[in-house]
Amino acid sequence: MQTLSTLDPDFQKKFTRLVNARRETDEDVAGRVSAILTAVKSRGDHALVEYSQRFDSYTLALDEDWVITPERCKEAYDGLDTELRDALDLAAKRIRSYHEAQLPSDRDYTDEAGVRLGSIWRPVDAAGLYVPGGRAAYPSSLLMNAIPARVAGVERLVVVTPTPRGDSNPTVLAAAHIAGIDEIWRVGGAHALGALAYGTERIKPVDVITGPGNAYVAEAKRQLYGVVGIDMVAGPSEILVIADGENDPDWIAADLLSQAEHDPTSQSILITDDAGFGSLVADCVRLQLNQLSTAKTAQESWEANGAVIVVNDLESEAPALANRLAAEHVELAIDNPEAMLPLIKHAGSVFLGRMTPEAIGDYVAGPNHVLPTGRRARFSSGLSVLDFMKRTSFLGLDDASFAAIGPAAATLAHAEGLPAHARSVELRSK
Amino acid sequence: MQTLSTLDPDFQKKFTRLVNARRETDEDVAGRVSAILTAVKSRGDHALVEYSQRFDSYTLALDEDWVITPERCKEAYDGLDTELRDALDLAAKRIRSYHEAQLPSDRDYTDEAGVRLGSIWRPVDAAGLYVPGGRAAYPSSLLMNAIPARVAGVERLVVVTPTPRGDSNPTVLAAAHIAGIDEIWRVGGAHALGALAYGTERIKPVDVITGPGNAYVAEAKRQLYGVVGIDMVAGPSEILVIADGENDPDWIAADLLSQAEHDPTSQSILITDDAGFGSLVADCVRLQLNQLSTAKTAQESWEANGAVIVVNDLESEAPALANRLAAEHVELAIDNPEAMLPLIKHAGSVFLGRMTPEAIGDYVAGPNHVLPTGRRARFSSGLSVLDFMKRTSFLGLDDASFAAIGPAAATLAHAEGLPAHARSVELRSK
Repeated sequence: MQTLSTLDPDFQKKFTRLVNARRETDEDVAGRVSAILTAVKSRGDHALVEYSQRFDSYTLALDEDWVITPERCKEAYDGLDTELRDALDLAAKRIRSYHEAQLPSDRDYTDEAGVRLGSIWRPVDAAGLYVPGGRAAYPSSLLMNAIPARVAGVERLVVVTPTPRGDSNPTVLAAAHIAGIDEIWRVGGAHALGALAYGTERIKPVDVITGPGNAYVAEAKRQLYGVVGIDMVAGPSEILVIADGENDPDWIAADLLSQAEHDPTSQSILITDDAGFGSLVADCVRLQLNQLSTAKTAQESWEANGAVIVVNDLESEAPALANRLAAEHVELAIDNPEAMLPLIKHAGSVFLGRMTPEAIGDYVAGPNHVLPTGRRARFSSGLSVLDFMKRTSFLGLDDASFAAIGPAAATLAHAEGLPAHARSVELRSK
Repeated sequence: MQTLSTLDPDFQKKFTRLVNARRETDEDVAGRVSAILTAVKSRGDHALVEYSQRFDSYTLALDEDWVITPERCKEAYDGLDTELRDALDLAAKRIRSYHEAQLPSDRDYTDEAGVRLGSIWRPVDAAGLYVPGGRAAYPSSLLMNAIPARVAGVERLVVVTPTPRGDSNPTVLAAAHIAGIDEIWRVGGAHALGALAYGTERIKPVDVITGPGNAYVAEAKRQLYGVVGIDMVAGPSEILVIADGENDPDWIAADLLSQAEHDPTSQSILITDDAGFGSLVADCVRLQLNQLSTAKTAQESWEANGAVIVVNDLESEAPALANRLAAEHVELAIDNPEAMLPLIKHAGSVFLGRMTPEAIGDYVAGPNHVLPTGRRARFSSGLSVLDFMKRTSFLGLDDASFAAIGPAAATLAHAEGLPAHARSVELRSK
């Protein structure tokens, strides 16, 4: 963990280093992923059988080895303890409600030249969701990926997930039941993404693939971008907490640790105008670390990537620093967060006020928790129903509107050296 | 050119071959592009000087060698003949008007649990537009890329364009004047994209890069995806014309040729329910070819990729075929195009009726002409203001709403094995 102060004459240099520090691992998996995708494209299910055996020690032999049925998911749901089931149901309901209001509107109008113009939004036919196996199998991620697709109107929702030695996570299956997943295939890794993109004998191809995964999964998505739509390149999680000295340091410490516990490459940064409060928070982080089952990961992250930045004045200094960091999550633990919100230009999601810890947004608030990382909030957005839809524009001319705007089209076509373009207009002008 | 008929027992096999035919070249440029991007990232302007010398025979020595000034663009605009200038102005005005209505709305509401929720759309800070040099330097493309960025509210709009031996296209400069480009740099190729993404001593980095280009440019964009936002992977142009026998075969032939003349890899397909009309159109294509300055390209495209598909019944058969082709442009040259429009699920843009040739949409209609190719209309959309904007979600809880939904978040955090997440909620619950 490092402490910076804007009073330090070297602050700009140090802060720029913090902004530009690369936390994404450059594991060189491109070649291996490319070979796996090629194998799946050419050998289909046979390749899936081989890779599942090799990577997951799982044999895809009989039909029932390939899929987890909706009935099995329903059983998992029914088997949850009531508190957890209610929490999942509440989360799903709130996520659905928030995303329903994202549905875009179509347009259809005739302009003053008499040209009919418009656009129509439609869902993709099929979406594939990657669900990691093992430790990173999060039911909340399944809801956050599947519900926007369902709200968008996607007809076929497919999950691929590795089941090492046959194991699957019952809470994830319960979430699949809630989200109404149509197919769950027991395949994971880069080969599962190849199957979703190219299709195999058993698995029909999809149009869009979303969901988190390891370096192989991320690289496979990157390589398949263009064959299918993908959500985004995801990197390590981040939180930036902007807090004055009036906060309980224990609360803020817990917020910082809630990102740090995700991964050693996660990053937690506090900006405060109260140096003493900053020290208190750092002390609380150390104390709380001892009580966490995730202490090893959280400590590694905090020590390598954590930072406390002390500024003179929060209002005038914090937004500019936040915009350079363009963090995935930004908490405004201050008296008047509404006043600062418009100044935070680059952020995945903003959490307003002292009673809004980031974890609320991870689970039950409603907005999506799949958010841009690695400063990508400068140009990209969290997952939404739009990631599962596409827009078709349309136009229609009659004789009068053609006479009004057609000649200009022919003029421009000639200027660009495209005579057939011009002719298609000129023939109709006669 | 091939002729298919749905009455042919082998039709499905032949049509599937047509749908899956790959027209995108797999030029292996990845390695070379990667080396160029690395050089620009590490050596900045020095690398640009070397590559411009090597690829464009152009020396970036003095300050004035690097940029084309706004004054120069204004001169080019003033120097255009009136008809062309008016046509460009009309195109810009109509494109601006169509895209202004794409501006998304923010949300800000408090739900029944008392949780404040919403999202804010904001433009990216800076966008870079690639403008090819030479033959493919199209002023219309500059307008179609720049105007949505300007409408989105992007503050800094940068063009990079190669100027082989110092040459630039005055109509393109005039378009740059109309669109209000802030900076034009005389660098092109993969190295120009590296400069836009990473920044150099002279060129400040941007957040989003759009615009067409050759295989090197496309590969550079692909490799930079994630460092910056990009518009999409673009492939060869396509048109699908759905026409009954009541059309003038010359008109439809010109429409087919207007895509064929773009590139030998372009594709033009006619679906008709009138076999005789289909033959007439093919005859007209051959006759018109002789009169085109672009005959060589158009003929190569038509012979290699063109197709006439004869169906029994347009209404019941054409939409399903169109949806499998998911073409960039779909013309409905039929009596009642409105009835078929809702059935065309996958298309970049649809052109309604006999008086709406595709070229109108290329230039002056208003909707964007940057559209998904290569069946990507299944999952992606034409360029829009959204490509130059991003959305930040926000949420805020008070004591009452925190009490209502906080416990469920803690329950889910525990279920996912994330104790610091749970603690950040539980500390506030006390």
